[in-house]
Amino acid sequence: MMKIIVDCHGNDLGASVAVQGSLSAIRKYDDISVVLVGLEDEIKKILLTYDYDENRVEVYPASEIITNEESPTEAVKTKKDSSLCKAFEFLKLDKDAVGLVSCGSTGAVLTASFLKAGRIKGVSRPALCPILPTQNNGKVMLIDSGANVDCKPINLCHFALMASAYAKAFLGKENPSVALLNIGTEDKKGNEFSHECFKLLSKMPINFVGNMEARDFLSGKYDIVVADGFYGNILLKSVEGTVGFVLKELKTNIKQSFLSKIGALFMKRTFQNMKEKLNVSNHGGAAFLGVKKLVVKGHGAGDSLAFEQCIGQVRTLAKNNLCKVIESEISALGENFDE
Amino acid sequence: MMKIIVDCHGNDLGASVAVQGSLSAIRKYDDISVVLVGLEDEIKKILLTYDYDENRVEVYPASEIITNEESPTEAVKTKKDSSLCKAFEFLKLDKDAVGLVSCGSTGAVLTASFLKAGRIKGVSRPALCPILPTQNNGKVMLIDSGANVDCKPINLCHFALMASAYAKAFLGKENPSVALLNIGTEDKKGNEFSHECFKLLSKMPINFVGNMEARDFLSGKYDIVVADGFYGNILLKSVEGTVGFVLKELKTNIKQSFLSKIGALFMKRTFQNMKEKLNVSNHGGAAFLGVKKLVVKGHGAGDSLAFEQCIGQVRTLAKNNLCKVIESEISALGENFDE
Repeated sequence: MMKIIVDCHGNDLGASVAVQGSLSAIRKYDDISVVLVGLEDEIKKILLTYDYDENRVEVYPASEIITNEESPTEAVKTKKDSSLCKAFEFLKLDKDAVGLVSCGSTGAVLTASFLKAGRIKGVSRPALCPILPTQNNGKVMLIDSGANVDCKPINLCHFALMASAYAKAFLGKENPSVALLNIGTEDKKGNEFSHECFKLLSKMPINFVGNMEARDFLSGKYDIVVADGFYGNILLKSVEGTVGFVLKELKTNIKQSFLSKIGALFMKRTFQNMKEKLNVSNHGGAAFLGVKKLVVKGHGAGDSLAFEQCIGQVRTLAKNNLCKVIESEISALGENFDE
Repeated sequence: MMKIIVDCHGNDLGASVAVQGSLSAIRKYDDISVVLVGLEDEIKKILLTYDYDENRVEVYPASEIITNEESPTEAVKTKKDSSLCKAFEFLKLDKDAVGLVSCGSTGAVLTASFLKAGRIKGVSRPALCPILPTQNNGKVMLIDSGANVDCKPINLCHFALMASAYAKAFLGKENPSVALLNIGTEDKKGNEFSHECFKLLSKMPINFVGNMEARDFLSGKYDIVVADGFYGNILLKSVEGTVGFVLKELKTNIKQSFLSKIGALFMKRTFQNMKEKLNVSNHGGAAFLGVKKLVVKGHGAGDSLAFEQCIGQVRTLAKNNLCKVIESEISALGENFDE
């Protein structure tokens, strides 16, 4: 039975939602068991309030918690007994452990994955790949969304390959389209870096469709958008910020008119649906691709559903051997694509 | 009397809105006259349909039009008799000509400004600076939004200085705050380029408040956001794209429920106001800063109001001698900030 490790701390809502989500996950999927890592007493206390299959739930104790306020590298190096570090320890030690879920500090999860899970041979830069909703109920993957801020073109080639394997394994896309984040769609657009990336990506065994504009990120035209982590992070965060801005504007405007207040009552449900859809954390966690084990980082504000989804995500990726697939595809690239 | 030159072609809605907007501008401001540059017969025909002060309207003939489909550099170099090139010709020849407005191809306007108006001494990279709406009815300026895609840190220092002068001249901000577009707010965040920019910007005679995240671009926390044109363009376009995405989602969601359709009827006006506010072109044109004459690029889809606003914008900047101010402030920076 596949074991999925859950870091129960570091998230905004604490261990309760982590445990609750894990238990719904084992109810939903009968081929997995979960390992809850964190403050033993707290977790066991929460478990007492639920009925569940005890053969499919382990508690692995930790005594510390890494917060968003700490320096990720320092925290991971010094807090050896933190829930995150212990989670990776278990992931490494147990042969049935297939992957890990955490909704804690992104920086810490990346650092720990890098240091404790290790990189897949040939991948010098593992990358973070979130999934966003697009028009017509589609999805788009963004890689790298911020793990690497000074990339070489070769890194983007690896990102593109890994995300293509990921899209196939998780979304079932047979031949996902990959576009390069740029400031225009013409082949010659952009800065020197984009020109080099374009050349190299064109030679990759992927469905590279050329340059794209940030304006079309959510249009549904592309399955995967590949970018240096610095650009990618700007794109991701501006989308989050702008969605929040528009919804706030809407609220303010509604408050200003009596008629529209009435209208808003009729639309309560619609607004709710929209918020749900636009909430990035409702589209699965971000996979950290290029490390030897499956790591899915859920949204820090995620609720129990977020944990359940992230666990289901790890399960799907494990069943499709994503890490092995990436390893073999990277090695198949040959010397020309070594860094 | 200040003469403001209007390129009447190259915009989506054609000469009619350019002429109409120019005439409303001279009605609104009694201290300016307009020079309408374009196809003489067409413009004169449009003028016949209006009552206006003929002493304050000149028509300067051109025989060609530069479109968005052409290569900007080639178009500006070969179409000598285009409305855009003739507009710059007039701007250069007439001592009363203070600035130019165009809603045509951005690339062509930038190229023509660069080649025909010339750079201000000490500014190696003129930059495009649009204005966006923020929360609490504020405004934020973004420089560079795409004119320069391979900047040196020194270029961003010039951008920051020019935008500060612009914010003072146009928005009346005495000490506008300037933030560096980055992937986090901490001083040490970002890539090598951001680190160098941060160091240099900290030494500038401006109100530099440090790094900012794309998420906070529309929060109203900052008056000016400075960025390499590549990052800036990604930020600007992702905001445009995301606003469009959210509004489309809203529409789709409303259509799906009978109740919310009713609600939408009550909110028609509110949605209209919101669209208006979120429409970038309703917040004035983008100023091209660093060239010797005032150049304001309006939105390609702009209506007559957009032209009127851009003309008013040039007028305000002219009254505040923006070009002279920028020239003296740049020279006052001294050698340390020469490229």
